[in-house]
Amino acid sequence: MVSVSTDAAMRRAIELAARGLGSTSPNPVVGCVLLDVNGELVGEGFHAYAGGPHAEMVALAQAGERARGGTAVVTLEPCDHTGRTGPCTGALIQAGVARVVIGVPDPNLVASGGAATLRAAGVEVEIGVRAAEVEAGNIAWLTAVRRGRPYVIWKFASTIDGRSAAADGTSMWITSEAARMDVHALRGTVDAVLVGIGTVLADDPRLTARNLRDGSLAIRQPLRVVVDSEGRTPADARVRDGAARTWVVTTAEVGATKEDRVDLDALMTGLYQRGVRAALLEGGPTLAGAFLAAGLVDKVVGYVAPKLLGAGPAALADAGPRTISEVIDLEFVDITQVGPDLRITALPRKREG
Amino acid sequence: MVSVSTDAAMRRAIELAARGLGSTSPNPVVGCVLLDVNGELVGEGFHAYAGGPHAEMVALAQAGERARGGTAVVTLEPCDHTGRTGPCTGALIQAGVARVVIGVPDPNLVASGGAATLRAAGVEVEIGVRAAEVEAGNIAWLTAVRRGRPYVIWKFASTIDGRSAAADGTSMWITSEAARMDVHALRGTVDAVLVGIGTVLADDPRLTARNLRDGSLAIRQPLRVVVDSEGRTPADARVRDGAARTWVVTTAEVGATKEDRVDLDALMTGLYQRGVRAALLEGGPTLAGAFLAAGLVDKVVGYVAPKLLGAGPAALADAGPRTISEVIDLEFVDITQVGPDLRITALPRKREG
Ligand SMILES: NC(=O)c1ccc[n+]([C@@H]2O[C@H](COP(=O)([O-])OP(=O)(O)OC[C@H]3O[C@@H](n4cnc5c(N)ncnc54)[C@H](OP(=O)(O)O)[C@@H]3O)[C@@H](O)[C@H]2O)c1
Ligand SMILES: NC(=O)c1ccc[n+]([C@@H]2O[C@H](COP(=O)([O-])OP(=O)(O)OC[C@H]3O[C@@H](n4cnc5c(N)ncnc54)[C@H](OP(=O)(O)O)[C@@H]3O)[C@@H](O)[C@H]2O)c1
Repeated sequence: MVSVSTDAAMRRAIELAARGLGSTSPNPVVGCVLLDVNGELVGEGFHAYAGGPHAEMVALAQAGERARGGTAVVTLEPCDHTGRTGPCTGALIQAGVARVVIGVPDPNLVASGGAATLRAAGVEVEIGVRAAEVEAGNIAWLTAVRRGRPYVIWKFASTIDGRSAAADGTSMWITSEAARMDVHALRGTVDAVLVGIGTVLADDPRLTARNLRDGSLAIRQPLRVVVDSEGRTPADARVRDGAARTWVVTTAEVGATKEDRVDLDALMTGLYQRGVRAALLEGGPTLAGAFLAAGLVDKVVGYVAPKLLGAGPAALADAGPRTISEVIDLEFVDITQVGPDLRITALPRKREG
Repeated sequence: MVSVSTDAAMRRAIELAARGLGSTSPNPVVGCVLLDVNGELVGEGFHAYAGGPHAEMVALAQAGERARGGTAVVTLEPCDHTGRTGPCTGALIQAGVARVVIGVPDPNLVASGGAATLRAAGVEVEIGVRAAEVEAGNIAWLTAVRRGRPYVIWKFASTIDGRSAAADGTSMWITSEAARMDVHALRGTVDAVLVGIGTVLADDPRLTARNLRDGSLAIRQPLRVVVDSEGRTPADARVRDGAARTWVVTTAEVGATKEDRVDLDALMTGLYQRGVRAALLEGGPTLAGAFLAAGLVDKVVGYVAPKLLGAGPAALADAGPRTISEVIDLEFVDITQVGPDLRITALPRKREG
């Protein structure tokens, strides 16, 4: 067998990590590659779901005795605490691994300290290999943990002229089936889907991740969240059906703003405590405006249909700016045609640390 | 020299024709390639500007005696009438050309009949070679002549959420300098630029094609058109400066709709009579809505900035649809990043013949 460089091993670990996307919350995605003394690849692993074995454990189990004196290449700093599984640091030390190469440090205060523990046990530790790529592959989780609140993706659908419904309120469908299927796939990658009570009362959406053709539900369903100051969500609203868990967030439960609306910071904290790391904000315009005004949107995904209406509600309302100098600046990071529609992805330019 | 197929010659003729884009109105762009008896290329020409020699004349002059017994490959049916220059049919017959291969027939009633005249003189005529490409290269002129009204491109600029100004009316600048330079290049390819009186009163635009860096004017300036029912354009409006010709269109001059506004069909006829084949409609939202409602828009070019406002006027108003089933359907034909902005080009799906 040929020997593998730690750089190539990290690339492979990043690929492995990505296989866990959408199923590891509240944990991060992690990939691990084990090289023996001669640099031969002897073990691979990734973290597949919360409660399941960590990437390092999977790789160590595969490598067995061949890990001794070898190198562990892992996207995230190995955990140092006993959670649902034992600490990875202990397992690496016990297996006799001589060197651990890490992509990015663990920002999680509870789990961090792994590098220090390894060094104290005489293991050589290197941090920062392909850090930018590791970061990009885990951006939602890393951002969420650093800020102590979910990473929020605002999704909207509109015509070219920015309308999300016609003048009489009708909107089925502005975007194509292909675009709506794409949204359901997006729902499958997040831990929660959020809407305002206005959307529930107007559209009575299900908010599940499902196959649009046959209606079958995805195995993993995001938490459905209705931001509903006074608890007006009807008892028979579809969002309350048994297809997924639902949280109707009221001011009584989490606290109110001075306008007597749900305190969004308290909502964010509550979601984080419930294990939500990535959340999809699906509107409507009022709630999206409030999130943007509060600087709580990390990514914008818009589905733009090649249509014109010339009248009807916009996809976004009251986001803060009153004059052009106060405009919210973003930058396009991806433009993809989805069926006849366009999916535009943009990131805010000024981001709070 | 190698012999050239008529198909390859037509490809070359299409390339040649494109060199005239933006300077031939009210004439079409035309390219011509002359092959001698052995199929060798002996002459090339294109129509460069109205009043200048036709493509066939340029190619014939270059070929001289070698045209005799040869083939003329020309994108558009040769003209049969004596306009600013003599008829091309006569020149081709006199030069002894044995065969004429044509891309598309001339839809212009005054100039057409060339194929018949050639055939009557014993010249072999073939029509329809690479017709789709020829058509695409001359779409504005062909559409205009077939309908007897200008080909209209509606251009707008907006944020992702469809706003063309902030809540207080400020809008300088929503799009980047790169996008605005692109608009000036677009102005250089049309014969007229149209706005409503609302835009003149709000923004006092110059509507010239110029270099944004040093302000220098393009050599050829489109006709500036203000759609202004009651003739409210101020005497000192910039659009009335000496930089280009201007037409302030009033109901008194062209006639009124039942709402006492400028009759758009009469406006279109007036523009056509003034030699306008391609026109750029630059807004505002009310005039654009009226054009769309009347089915007078042939192409939509939108510059979308990666920005959000959440309030402020939309780029389009009152375009007709009151409910979702009446939506105006388009299809995206090009998406290009221009600086930080996106330029989206779309064509209406249902087009009147
Ligand atoms: N095109 C799209 O992408 C899209 C997506 C979703 C919805 N829509 C459309 O949007 C329309 C509904 O929009 P909408 O603006 O009326 O409703 P919305 O944004 O879904 O809900 C707004 C409501 O949320 C509640 N809320 C609670 N706390 C809030 C806070 N801190 N900030 C802001 N809102 C808070 C408020 O009502 P309370 O104070 O009573 O709780 C507020 O009126 C529907 O017609 C739907 O079809 C379009
Ligand atoms: N973002 C962009 O791309 C863009 C481009 C241009 C302008 N704008 C903005 O648009 C705003 C002005 O918009 P606007 O809608 O008020 O003005 P507009 O569309 O430029 O002009 C509308 C006016 O044109 C006149 N008109 C005459 N005949 C008409 C007909 N058949 N149909 C429709 N209108 C006819 C009417 O006034 P009379 O009856 O009095 O003649 C009408 O009020 C400005 O704030 C400007 O900044 C934005």
